[in-house]
Order: sequence, then structure tokens, then C-alpha cells
Amino acid sequence: MSYKIGIVGATGAVGQELIRLLLERQFPVSELRLFASARSAGKRLPAGDREITVEEAKADVFDGLDFAIFSASSGLSKELAPEAAARGCVVIDNSSAFRMDSEVPLVVPEINPDAAARHHGIIANPNCSTIVALMALAPLNQAFGLKRFIASTYQAVSGTGAAAMVELENQVQAHVKGGEAKAEVYPHPIAFNLLPHVDKFLDTGYTAEEVKMENEGRKIMALPDLKVSCLCVRVPVFRAHSVSVNAEFERPVSIEAARKAIDAFPGSELTDEPLENVYPMPLDYAGKVNCGVGRLRLDTALDNGLALWVVGDQLWKGAALNAIQIAELLHERKAWSFEVAGV
Amino acid sequence: MSYKIGIVGATGAVGQELIRLLLERQFPVSELRLFASARSAGKRLPAGDREITVEEAKADVFDGLDFAIFSASSGLSKELAPEAAARGCVVIDNSSAFRMDSEVPLVVPEINPDAAARHHGIIANPNCSTIVALMALAPLNQAFGLKRFIASTYQAVSGTGAAAMVELENQVQAHVKGGEAKAEVYPHPIAFNLLPHVDKFLDTGYTAEEVKMENEGRKIMALPDLKVSCLCVRVPVFRAHSVSVNAEFERPVSIEAARKAIDAFPGSELTDEPLENVYPMPLDYAGKVNCGVGRLRLDTALDNGLALWVVGDQLWKGAALNAIQIAELLHERKAWSFEVAGV
Repeated sequence: MSYKIGIVGATGAVGQELIRLLLERQFPVSELRLFASARSAGKRLPAGDREITVEEAKADVFDGLDFAIFSASSGLSKELAPEAAARGCVVIDNSSAFRMDSEVPLVVPEINPDAAARHHGIIANPNCSTIVALMALAPLNQAFGLKRFIASTYQAVSGTGAAAMVELENQVQAHVKGGEAKAEVYPHPIAFNLLPHVDKFLDTGYTAEEVKMENEGRKIMALPDLKVSCLCVRVPVFRAHSVSVNAEFERPVSIEAARKAIDAFPGSELTDEPLENVYPMPLDYAGKVNCGVGRLRLDTALDNGLALWVVGDQLWKGAALNAIQIAELLHERKAWSFEVAGV
Repeated sequence: MSYKIGIVGATGAVGQELIRLLLERQFPVSELRLFASARSAGKRLPAGDREITVEEAKADVFDGLDFAIFSASSGLSKELAPEAAARGCVVIDNSSAFRMDSEVPLVVPEINPDAAARHHGIIANPNCSTIVALMALAPLNQAFGLKRFIASTYQAVSGTGAAAMVELENQVQAHVKGGEAKAEVYPHPIAFNLLPHVDKFLDTGYTAEEVKMENEGRKIMALPDLKVSCLCVRVPVFRAHSVSVNAEFERPVSIEAARKAIDAFPGSELTDEPLENVYPMPLDYAGKVNCGVGRLRLDTALDNGLALWVVGDQLWKGAALNAIQIAELLHERKAWSFEVAGV
């Protein structure tokens, strides 16, 4: 069995990693087609040792494809994902368009693989910071029963996309060489600065990104009463997101049991030898499959509490890798077929 | 009344700001002497429009001085501050040496000015991240009664000192121009990276810096039962510390009352118009007297909870400015005289 696959948003930072990881992980591909906006159509992109011409993403391109991974705007997903599914092409969607839709599974394969099979043609890939935080919290939830958590993020510019990575680079070049580097992607300079501002602001004072972390964790871990509070901050790091987490559990915790739970969890690893200056850092976790958990300690403010620091590659586990792992899961379980929702 | 003043650690990043701020704030100085290690003795440092020769810091230099501000190592403070006090020279100490000593007041003038007068020759200046966090938490404590707080810091390299600022600059230069820039001040590169590691690690898994934030907040706000949990992270920012805070209060909270409390508090200002992309950022708060509080919101995980983001210049309010404000307070209150503790 091999697959006819489409990538929507192929020219973006996540799109590039999707092409790379599909090949590196030897996913069975019989045909790979790349889609983007009309502006990028005709562009040729490298895929392993050959080049593929980018096509404009529109409804009829999905005819005959087995599945497509979308990593473009939420608007484009809303428009085209149902068109693709209606043509029998399963969509793994990296946007926030369908994540909280009760008919759409929201999947981290290590955490809720069974949810994936209950799809109706669309499966949502969670928010990047949510995935990274949950790679530490899910094993601890299994061990102690998660009751609430507080998170502060340290998010790399890769989460905004390729243009933001160029903007940080340009601002740093201007700092060293003189000259000006405008802030265009972000409303303020990001080099040597911090922006407590990821995604748009809502009336509550929270950002959409912070609300995603709140809601998506509840859905993925099937904990509807979980209490969550987040602050999301953009930092001058190129790649890999970091999250400071304080979590309260139903049952008594211990560091030993917490270490065991994290170590045994696929996709997570303990990087926690502080006396040896060993802890997870974004420079070490860019281009790494696993998320790293460190600074694990008994929380001094919460009952049955644990505090930790988790780092993961936003472009990989936070986006492209998790999407491909969903495809690998459907492949292993032969779970591609679906009935259209609500019919 | 004007004063004979010594600065111990005059060649450091905080020392430089102490000289600058004493002059800029027109503190009544009749004589200014600068002290540092033997290695720096003889060096000439600018102070306004003249130069002062640095002297080696040792016990007898304090004879005849009215007060000295120490901003060197904890070890040097332990050795020389009692010597200075024994000579009638009041010490305002920026190190952690005496902060938790029950005989030594730990003072943020806007928060606990009355404590300053009860000194025995040594007054401690709090930890930089603690001061910045408390400039938001103290007014909220007055309004609602603080019960516990959780903080994650985003600390600039200025907190480590001048050599760390050079190290970040060198690593950024190497990134742009090629070549190598070793990590010498920090155990890992700080450019484009994050180090969840400020000060030394303790057996509990917390760092000394995290424990300072825990203990010093209790002492300064006179809340011995306050529960606190912190993670301290070094970020690639030159100057100004930022702190993400989630706080739980005894009494019901409201955003309106919280905004009023912060706005009315001297030394703090609201910078919180998120829909206009206005929030405190380290680039805007370097070289600013006030600390900026923004991203104020009802906490979604804590009862009677508020979440916020506070930014302040580590070299100023976090160190040099607060020390000088303590001197200004003693000057206004004519509170220089003291009896040696425990005699």
C-alpha cells in the first residue's frame, strides 16, 4: 500500500518540513503533489533528489488523492478541507479551523491514537505549544490525574513562519552591521526583545493562542473540567518552543514516579541533570523528534504539584512531524475510510 | 546635608548605573569614592564630567564614609559590610548575603519603607526578579490580599553582569560574521537560545535564584505564609527582566480594581492596551524608572486569580535605582543612625 499525497501550503516553513519528513521517514508515497496559493503556482520545490512543480490549491486538485496535509491559513482550510474530504481525500489539518469541532478528532498519536480512527474525513493537528506542553503533561496525567495547569511559553519565531525567521535574521544583521530592519511580520522588533503577544487578542485579554492551549488540552486528554491558564510569549529564538509548566494533580506526586512516567512515554525524554548543567534548550531541540523535559521539581505553590520545563521543535513535533505521525497511525490501523459527518 | 558615599563594585554593570543615577537624581554627594577588587584598583572611571580613581575595597576605606552601596559578590559583602557598619558607614547591599537575615531589613521603598529605619547598619536590596515581580504584586496584595503566586521569568543577560552582555554580543557577531564565540560566562550559548538556569542549582531541583524569589517576596510584603513557585530563565535580551505571573488572592478580584491599584502605585505603570499592540517589552523598559504591567487578565486556572506580565530594568529598579531609592528614603527620614545588632 502506498499513497497519493498532497501538501497544501508546501512553500511555508512547515510545508518544507513535511516534504523532508515524509521522505526521511520513508512514508509509502506513490505520488506527491504540492499546493500553494496562486502566487506560488509554477514554482519548483526540491523533494529529495527531484523537483516538484507547485500547483494552485483549489477544490478539484484533491480528486484521486488518498490524503492531504494542510498547513496554510485557517481560512483556506475552512474553504478547501471539506472539498477534499467530499472527494474522498482524508485531510490532516494543521490550522485551527476544525480543532474544536466535535466531529473532528484532535490528535497527538502518543496521547489519543484511538480518537484518530473516528474521523469523518478531517483530522486536526493541535496547536504547536499545546503539543509540546502535553508531551510532558500527558504521561503525568496518566500517573497522577491532572487537575489544573499554568503555563508560560517561550515561542520561537518559526511558529509564525518562514518570513518571521527572516525578520529575526534581518534585525540581528542590522544590529551588527548597522542599518535598519523594520518590524513587518511582528508589530515590534523581536531581536533582543520579547513580545507577550502570539496570535490575535480577544475581549478577555487572552490571545487566541492562549485559548487554544486551554481548550485543546482538555479535548486531547479528554479532561473536560481541566483548569488551564496560559501566557504565550514570542522570544528571539529561531526554532523550538519552550514551556514553563506548573501542574496540580488529583493524587500525591513524587519526582521518582514522575521521571519514570516521562521516560516511559514515547516521544518524550528526560533531559534533567541540572547539577551537570543538563536541561532542555531550544538550540538542542531544533531538528529533534523527541520533546525534552527537564527542571522537574515538586511545586512549592500547588498541592500535589509538579513544575517542569519542556522544549520541542515547533516545526516537527509541534506541526509537521505530528501530522505525519497521524498519517502513519492511519496507515498502521488501516483507518483511512470514513463516512461524511452528520449525514 | 550631603554625604560621603562609597560604591563597592564600581566597575560592574550595576556599579556604572549607580554612579550615573546618583548624579542624574542629584543625590546630595559631598564625596564619591569608588571601590573594586585589587585587579581594578588604579583604573579611572568617568563620573559626570570628571574621573575618579578606583581604590581597592578593604575594611579601612569605610572610615569616615556616611554610607556605601555594595554591588559585588556575596562573599565580599559578607566580609566587608560588617566592617563598614562597625565604622559607622551604613551599607546598602545589593548581594544576597544578608537578605534573609532577620536583623537586616530587605527593602523596596514603595512597598515596605518603614522597615528601612529599623536597620543595624546594613540594609539589603532585593533580588532583581523579585523586585520586578513585586512592583506588580504589591499593589494587588494591598487591594485583594495575596495568597500565592506562580512566576516564570525571562531574565536579561545584564542580570549576570557586563561580561554576559559582551558574551551575547560576541555570539551574535559570530552568527552574522562567521567565526566562533565561546560560551564562557554561561555553560551554553545564550544567543538564539534559552537557559532555564539562573544562579546555582540546589538539591530540591530549584535554583538559588528561584528560592530568592520565593523567600524575599514573603519578607518584603510581610506575608510569611505566602506560597510561591518560580522558574527562572535566562533569555537573549540585553537589559530589562520580564516576569509572567499568576496570582491567587484572598478576596474576589476585578480587572478594574486591579488596574486602579497598579496605576496608583508609585514606581509601577499600566502598559496594557493589547488591541493597540501595547504591552510592556524589555526594549521599551531598558533605562526606564517605572516597571510596566500589562497583559492583565482574570486567571482561568486559579480562584480569585489574576494573571499578568511585568517588565522592569534589572540594572535600575532591579538593582541600582532601588539601592539609591533606599538611600533617598534614609535621607528624607533622617534614618541613618543605628545601633549594632545583637549588642
